[in-house]
Amino acid sequence: MNQHYINLVQRLEEIAHLNGVMSNLGWDQEVMMPAGASESRAKQIAALAGVIHERATDPALGDCLKELQETSKAGAWGAIEQCNIQEALRNYEMEIRIPKRLVQEIAELSSRGQVIWVAARQHNKFSDFAPVLKRFLKLKIEWAQCVLPNLQPYDANIDLFERGTTMAMITPVFERLKQELIPLINAIQSHSYHPDTTFLRGTFATEKQEFLARKLSRDIGFDFDRGRMDVSVHPFCGGSHPTDVRITTRYSESNFIESLYSIIHETGHALYEQGRPHQLGDLPVTESSTMGIHESQSLFWERMIAQSKSFCSHYFKDFRETFPDNLRAVSLEEFYRAINNCTPGFIRVEADEVTYPLHVILRYEIERGLFDDTLSVDDLPGIWNESMQKYLGITPPTDTLGVLQDSHWSGGAFGYFPSYTLGALYACQFYQKLVQEQPDTEQNIALGNFKPIKQWLNEKIHCHGKLYSPQELIKNVTGAHLNPDYFITYLKTKYSEIYQLS
Amino acid sequence: MNQHYINLVQRLEEIAHLNGVMSNLGWDQEVMMPAGASESRAKQIAALAGVIHERATDPALGDCLKELQETSKAGAWGAIEQCNIQEALRNYEMEIRIPKRLVQEIAELSSRGQVIWVAARQHNKFSDFAPVLKRFLKLKIEWAQCVLPNLQPYDANIDLFERGTTMAMITPVFERLKQELIPLINAIQSHSYHPDTTFLRGTFATEKQEFLARKLSRDIGFDFDRGRMDVSVHPFCGGSHPTDVRITTRYSESNFIESLYSIIHETGHALYEQGRPHQLGDLPVTESSTMGIHESQSLFWERMIAQSKSFCSHYFKDFRETFPDNLRAVSLEEFYRAINNCTPGFIRVEADEVTYPLHVILRYEIERGLFDDTLSVDDLPGIWNESMQKYLGITPPTDTLGVLQDSHWSGGAFGYFPSYTLGALYACQFYQKLVQEQPDTEQNIALGNFKPIKQWLNEKIHCHGKLYSPQELIKNVTGAHLNPDYFITYLKTKYSEIYQLS
Repeated sequence: MNQHYINLVQRLEEIAHLNGVMSNLGWDQEVMMPAGASESRAKQIAALAGVIHERATDPALGDCLKELQETSKAGAWGAIEQCNIQEALRNYEMEIRIPKRLVQEIAELSSRGQVIWVAARQHNKFSDFAPVLKRFLKLKIEWAQCVLPNLQPYDANIDLFERGTTMAMITPVFERLKQELIPLINAIQSHSYHPDTTFLRGTFATEKQEFLARKLSRDIGFDFDRGRMDVSVHPFCGGSHPTDVRITTRYSESNFIESLYSIIHETGHALYEQGRPHQLGDLPVTESSTMGIHESQSLFWERMIAQSKSFCSHYFKDFRETFPDNLRAVSLEEFYRAINNCTPGFIRVEADEVTYPLHVILRYEIERGLFDDTLSVDDLPGIWNESMQKYLGITPPTDTLGVLQDSHWSGGAFGYFPSYTLGALYACQFYQKLVQEQPDTEQNIALGNFKPIKQWLNEKIHCHGKLYSPQELIKNVTGAHLNPDYFITYLKTKYSEIYQLS
Repeated sequence: MNQHYINLVQRLEEIAHLNGVMSNLGWDQEVMMPAGASESRAKQIAALAGVIHERATDPALGDCLKELQETSKAGAWGAIEQCNIQEALRNYEMEIRIPKRLVQEIAELSSRGQVIWVAARQHNKFSDFAPVLKRFLKLKIEWAQCVLPNLQPYDANIDLFERGTTMAMITPVFERLKQELIPLINAIQSHSYHPDTTFLRGTFATEKQEFLARKLSRDIGFDFDRGRMDVSVHPFCGGSHPTDVRITTRYSESNFIESLYSIIHETGHALYEQGRPHQLGDLPVTESSTMGIHESQSLFWERMIAQSKSFCSHYFKDFRETFPDNLRAVSLEEFYRAINNCTPGFIRVEADEVTYPLHVILRYEIERGLFDDTLSVDDLPGIWNESMQKYLGITPPTDTLGVLQDSHWSGGAFGYFPSYTLGALYACQFYQKLVQEQPDTEQNIALGNFKPIKQWLNEKIHCHGKLYSPQELIKNVTGAHLNPDYFITYLKTKYSEIYQLS
């Protein structure tokens, strides 16, 4: 084996192990850390981040990569080694291209911005948050010009989360979704029938919810020997390695569907993490693909599987036995319709699968407009509310329920939102392919036999790590490029049936 | 402020923060980590240990210390700065004096030794473990010669845990203890009266035990806003910072005293950690003193306070209300005597306060003999059993219950055992001083008013960090050097009363 490559592997694995430690610290902070430790923890994280940055920008790593790049050009490497070299090169160049001043200013503004956003949201005062947003916009444009100078600044920001995907690809897809979903939502809203959801509210003992959550997660395939399940304020999937994947949820006594579907969502992320090809070493090729692909795995289980009638038919008996007082008089069909209730609302994270994309598109259009200077920050509250009215037929009564609702911009995470909806589209396209290849999928779900489904995802997606771009991956798996028609057809068919639309 | 000193502080705080991260990883491994993650965690720990070692041996740190040493000689520093410089110098020199080969060999043998010891203990086969012990002895003598060449090798090993304490100090103290405790134990054993302890066995619901454990820990003064309590196989006090102190216990359904007194013990350690003067920065001066002083804090609460009649009189009502079926017919006096039952046994960690020191002295004498070559490893099982017979009047039926019982030697931790008994002596001497200064201490305990006690420990011991040597500390606090008479008198008085010895 090439000495430079051995050197590279050692350096990358050290960085990966230190990043694993950092992830563990992050999990601990959300799940375990006592409140009084926040200051000492911030210092620990800063020290470790400093070490990781030092390793990631070590000129000796740069020299090693330069040597390997020469060999790469000669086509000497297999796909796996090639991927490791290319990813390492990209990461290294991104790290060293950013001036230290810019790194510090972004870090400082992220931490300050979060505090200002929390207060602005609380006081419903967008004008307090606007200066943060303006400053972040400037910094993120400068960042883009340093790091990915060949891309338009907003495309560079998208690239960080959704490598290889640009406005030129997203805009037509989102236009198509608008064109199809707005009329669908209108039809649903104007229809006289609406599912009864009253029985989903009530009192549901937390221990029983937790028992169900663990059972469903295990049934689906989460390996508790290589992971944990805990409670945190915001559900997430964390951990430090494919052998140490940690999911969280939160329990509300008055709503068991929320915690249950959130744990199914996080389990989808977790199966991806547990399925990564770590036997190839702790190297870039074993990492997960983009945010969109990751989200496709969580939405695959949450929506394509767990919101299906087959899934409900398998578990409804369990749910009713667990919460007899609440569900005694409810039929399977009523339950299925209730959990698929579609109602436009102000808050993205509470949105159903039909209205969710419009929340994302609205944000995407705003970000795009901010980056190409056709929108100004000060106008955002008005633009937000106009778009909400146009897309979902509702106007938020306050900015707290509107433009101030998400934390993303307070940390400068522009370009993140599209991943949510790309994930939904990927999930649907993957699912259609699975059903085509395994026509008994619905029966399997109805029987609680999730093994063939998990195995299909493991083989088609998880085990490839970062070997393929998302564009290649979707083509390899489904034989087609990203195509919103799958998603549109799925929604139209499903919701026409539920809402008895003609 | 001197530029070199500022430089030193930055370097030492970075190391302290990374050590905090390492401690958090260690806690996580014992308390949270899924079993399947052990291999990935080992790599993460190795990567972080490598970084810390690199920082701790950075020649630039050495240069900085050399500059500061010059200034120190001129007496330019206050006590705090002086302590930071001296401690940093000692740590740096200890790190750089050990050849890398030796570090690696010790690390490798520790990890291998642990596995071999577990198997040898399981199969009751000392001869399988003997080669590890012989090799460790060689390595630890070599280590001592590198690191602390001015000390005898066993003294150097003791120095690692109990700075400034040598065989010359320990041997006469331990001889005195033997002289006094062996007859006391004989008198207790040969007496016809023995406390009834049967009611301490039974069934005690784990949730109730945990409720009591949390209550007692909080009552004593553990700050849950800057710490946690969890469950682990072996109880310990860990965490990453004085603002993040994490204690653990384990619950046995059949024995509530064990978990309760173990949590009191760990709370004693935790109060020391939470009381460290971290406002001075994350620097050596804020660290705790020796293992013996640390143990004095846990034993202070576990034995001097919680095994006292006043403590029992305050809590017995709670215990009886919590476990009415078990304690209904038991009187306070009976309870007090039961938890202070003195019976020679084979296992150190299960020993009572009277017999415990003899377990330690036996190990000390063996270690000393191994280092000065008057004992040979192969003879240990026989020597162990002879000493047990001589000191406690019992002979272990197997080496598993004898020479193979402790994990310490499997990791090369020679010189650690004396700290347990030094801790007991310090605890008793501190307690006598407290009672002298605060004559209402027993009433306070009986009222559950632990604040003045905790505050006394905070002010006399905790807040000084590493500013004083243990020898200075005990002198400052009690006005006297370490004196075993306090402990001997305490035991004689207490156990004469319990066992009605004449």
